[in-house]
Amino acid sequence: MRHSLLLTLLAASALPMGAQAIIEAPRAQIEAFNQKFEAATRHMDNAAIMDLWAENGITLLPSAKPVIGKAAIAAMMNAVTEQIKGARMDKFELRCSAIEVSGDLATEWCSEHQIVILPNGKPPFDGRGKMLLVLRRGADRKWRLLREMWSQSDAD
Amino acid sequence: MRHSLLLTLLAASALPMGAQAIIEAPRAQIEAFNQKFEAATRHMDNAAIMDLWAENGITLLPSAKPVIGKAAIAAMMNAVTEQIKGARMDKFELRCSAIEVSGDLATEWCSEHQIVILPNGKPPFDGRGKMLLVLRRGADRKWRLLREMWSQSDAD
Repeated sequence: MRHSLLLTLLAASALPMGAQAIIEAPRAQIEAFNQKFEAATRHMDNAAIMDLWAENGITLLPSAKPVIGKAAIAAMMNAVTEQIKGARMDKFELRCSAIEVSGDLATEWCSEHQIVILPNGKPPFDGRGKMLLVLRRGADRKWRLLREMWSQSDAD
Repeated sequence: MRHSLLLTLLAASALPMGAQAIIEAPRAQIEAFNQKFEAATRHMDNAAIMDLWAENGITLLPSAKPVIGKAAIAAMMNAVTEQIKGARMDKFELRCSAIEVSGDLATEWCSEHQIVILPNGKPPFDGRGKMLLVLRRGADRKWRLLREMWSQSDAD
């Protein structure tokens, strides 16, 4: 009888624990995604950044047309890198908040602070921005960027 | 035999048709949401706009701190309306694209064109912007704005 009660309690507790693990796992995966995104950006490693994008990704930047599709985003990033050839990222910090997940979609917003050392003795670029991100989990269970929008942060 | 084959075909077709209906229904709901959002903004009806926001909504505007929570968003909108007292929206067009839905989250991006008639003989404001939206379906099955980010569109 005691043994049977123990089994019943174990069985009753198994579902909530399992359900909790299912809910929490995507958050940890998205935090791991954010670390990869931060490192790839800090290293200005466009190939590593593009690995994090979904095929049908879209990025929205101020005063620009939407850049639609992974190939177009890669071309845009390479054009920017070419324009600032010889630059390197001295600092890139990403702080993300308010992760929400449902099914294969997730969203969060992030603030970023970047210091870029520019070539030819130009003064370093020190900028702060914020981003709204939407991630999609693919058939391979990997989270990738589906939507990104950036704008500058407040002055202080 | 012929009758049984027909039943088998009907049974086989029932699941895909049902599944398709489940997938398509949220898109129609989100298009209906967009129409309400467009109408409420055109009428500068802050109460109707706030009805479309989730309690834990966040809006991200350029050069400003994130506005977090429905109460803070309502206060910000009322402050803006107060600043341009006497203004009215002559035109507000919203065009949304690339709806993606999974579970209780959905995302889309929209372009908007607004012409605002200002009081005291000031010239009308004619502006274009784009937005990344994330919607969440509540326990009552209604879709509400969970995240909104806006920036100006390209010049042309």
